[in-house]
Amino acid sequence: MGRLERPVLAVNMKAYDSAFGERARDLARAAGRVSSSTGVRVILVAPLLNAASLAAIYEDVYAQHADPVGFGAYTGFTPAEALALEGVRGVMVNHSEHKMIYRDVERVVESAKKAGLEVLACADTPGEAAGLAFMRVDFIAVEPPELIGTGIPVSKAKPEVITGALEAVRRVREVPVLAGAGITGGEDAARAVELGSAGVLVASAVMKAADPESKMRELAEAMSRAWRR
Amino acid sequence: MGRLERPVLAVNMKAYDSAFGERARDLARAAGRVSSSTGVRVILVAPLLNAASLAAIYEDVYAQHADPVGFGAYTGFTPAEALALEGVRGVMVNHSEHKMIYRDVERVVESAKKAGLEVLACADTPGEAAGLAFMRVDFIAVEPPELIGTGIPVSKAKPEVITGALEAVRRVREVPVLAGAGITGGEDAARAVELGSAGVLVASAVMKAADPESKMRELAEAMSRAWRR
Amino acid sequence: MGRLERPVLAVNMKAYDSAFGERARDLARAAGRVSSSTGVRVILVAPLLNAASLAAIYEDVYAQHADPVGFGAYTGFTPAEALALEGVRGVMVNHSEHKMIYRDVERVVESAKKAGLEVLACADTPGEAAGLAFMRVDFIAVEPPELIGTGIPVSKAKPEVITGALEAVRRVREVPVLAGAGITGGEDAARAVELGSAGVLVASAVMKAADPESKMRELAEAMSRAWRR
Amino acid sequence: MGRLERPVLAVNMKAYDSAFGERARDLARAAGRVSSSTGVRVILVAPLLNAASLAAIYEDVYAQHADPVGFGAYTGFTPAEALALEGVRGVMVNHSEHKMIYRDVERVVESAKKAGLEVLACADTPGEAAGLAFMRVDFIAVEPPELIGTGIPVSKAKPEVITGALEAVRRVREVPVLAGAGITGGEDAARAVELGSAGVLVASAVMKAADPESKMRELAEAMSRAWRR
Repeated sequence: MGRLERPVLAVNMKAYDSAFGERARDLARAAGRVSSSTGVRVILVAPLLNAASLAAIYEDVYAQHADPVGFGAYTGFTPAEALALEGVRGVMVNHSEHKMIYRDVERVVESAKKAGLEVLACADTPGEAAGLAFMRVDFIAVEPPELIGTGIPVSKAKPEVITGALEAVRRVREVPVLAGAGITGGEDAARAVELGSAGVLVASAVMKAADPESKMRELAEAMSRAWRR
Repeated sequence: MGRLERPVLAVNMKAYDSAFGERARDLARAAGRVSSSTGVRVILVAPLLNAASLAAIYEDVYAQHADPVGFGAYTGFTPAEALALEGVRGVMVNHSEHKMIYRDVERVVESAKKAGLEVLACADTPGEAAGLAFMRVDFIAVEPPELIGTGIPVSKAKPEVITGALEAVRRVREVPVLAGAGITGGEDAARAVELGSAGVLVASAVMKAADPESKMRELAEAMSRAWRR
Repeated sequence: MGRLERPVLAVNMKAYDSAFGERARDLARAAGRVSSSTGVRVILVAPLLNAASLAAIYEDVYAQHADPVGFGAYTGFTPAEALALEGVRGVMVNHSEHKMIYRDVERVVESAKKAGLEVLACADTPGEAAGLAFMRVDFIAVEPPELIGTGIPVSKAKPEVITGALEAVRRVREVPVLAGAGITGGEDAARAVELGSAGVLVASAVMKAADPESKMRELAEAMSRAWRR
Repeated sequence: MGRLERPVLAVNMKAYDSAFGERARDLARAAGRVSSSTGVRVILVAPLLNAASLAAIYEDVYAQHADPVGFGAYTGFTPAEALALEGVRGVMVNHSEHKMIYRDVERVVESAKKAGLEVLACADTPGEAAGLAFMRVDFIAVEPPELIGTGIPVSKAKPEVITGALEAVRRVREVPVLAGAGITGGEDAARAVELGSAGVLVASAVMKAADPESKMRELAEAMSRAWRR
């Protein structure tokens, strides 16, 4: 697999209050505008509760998680197949705030791919990323958990985690790597691209912004410029 | 608290394939018809993924689960407050297939009530039911897990679990008790009402039925007759 | 069941460094001396790792936990039956730092009793305590988790948790209740007895004491005086 | 790192009834005899409950698990440091029956190594093994969980899991790989060595044997012959 055509801005909506209701729908519409005008792929990683309804507004919606189950007698758990049935495009798995054991990640990835979903798998470290590269995932996001939500950008504070993950993943298979944790502005995002990543995974920077659309635009434009260099 | 005005048919949709997509929406419409024509309260206990969208079709939708978190940096977890924001009426907690430790049940019940949601809490045994009665829940469903999905109705095979739960709950506080596990037909549902329960919690009987609406109607009508006796 | 003959001082050794090696063996010998000279029952609640070896030094040793499994293909899990086979007298279950779902507590209590072990079950609140009273446990310890390790004694800061638990448990069955959380001195322990509890469950007060034996003696003597009043 | 001097027979005692009490002590003595007479390293992977006391009988004892905690206020959890303090030589982590998330495995491995313990980490698949090879572990055991306890030997039924794991691990770092799952006799063990593994991890074959010492001897002698070839 060669280089992606365009960089990726993945926005993890988490469970912030801005991730639900009308504000979430506004965000979905804004994501569409930012994506169209910047040429950057904007993936909204939505709560399970509104992933399907946001997918009806904006095409590029992932769910934040799926459980290692198929269709059946499971209460309050979400099979990846169900995401596909409800029109969601992809699924994020193994986020730092929702870790699973290796075998369960494998199980979810397998059923997600079988159902035609894209998969973004998260790793804390290069070692964890290497293990994930053995699976049929579309993206690997690397986020040192100690930087998540701090505003201290991984691309500046721990660039070796990004480059280490890129190298570790490449030893196994070419999978686009996103960088995450502490990324708050365009400069951090551009730096992540310059280090070789295919984009960034952000959360609070957008979800807690006074103007989320401007923030997405800032991040996307900076990555777009760095990508063309 | 006195007796409820009408019995309750709670349908746990689980993660059966019939719980998603168009078939789920059909079920929501059917629930409305059954409820109107029989006078029985029909609660649809929906997957997180479509609880909100089903709530837009049918007013009496609960989510199958909520997590012990508030709004914030939680990925793939569902705060009870978010259910309220997305128009869902209530939440089921502590189902046999999604147990939580006591403290987490308390946490979810508390935030659900604060957000104006109704709460249906599940217990395996009279002892577990007694503990739940200390919380501000609206219903307690008792289901011996060894009978779930078996087609062996609790109301016949283990009536003492229902009467034991009724007695254990009453020692603490008057909370309507639903009976569940193995209930497949009207006769089982009527028997549950005769034993003193306020209704039933069913899953496979409806979700795997060739004609779910007829099955809901059969259960509702039988309870309605038993209720008036 | 009437009143116990003598109050109980249960010492949860936790995983403090003083809970292992020679210091743990010293503690076991000291517990024997304190118990003999004060007439208070001193239960040492030991780590899984040395519960058996401490039981060879001092007769009144409980393990801190057992898992809901029997003998069999379980790796790194501890069946209650194994505790009995290794000479341990009892087991603590459901401690605030090691909560289990209700059904698993039931499973452990059942196999512990079958194996001839005593059981001390822990609750955060009166409601949780009521649920545990349905099981065949020998003691229920109530500890508001927000006070554990704080040095703010439950017997002064939240006496209503103790009296509430006593009342909630009594509604179900007479089980001796121990009070815990924040108890650091004799006065707190005496107060717990005066409120109607059968003793106390302590941890850091003893395990982090410069002289654990003196601390155990102080707590035991104060309870002994309050008990005779 | 070059090749080990001698092959390894690791015996996971699990929680079989033969893993406790006098039978466990007999096994420890037998392990010593087999190790001396065959020249094969025999590691007994013991329950937490008697790891320390078996370590007093036989020098080569590992614990079956340690928890991702240090010394402190943890109840019923086992810090790796405590194993060292109690004279245990090593620790097995992430066994198929006791999986942890990646980050917790890292945490245990780190504190185990700091405490001077050896570490045997388990993987289900080559991908999981690759991730573990990024950590400072001494052995990686690969066991396809679907074969554990079946008597269908991995070395015959799924040799590609062993060779795949060897290759995946080697891409990261040279770590001796043990093969496990379904190995019941000398021929299976010899085959595992011929495939390039440094030995085997067995459980039921020894623990359920009428004569565990003979079984250990059979496995050890077969590996010893294959090793010298």
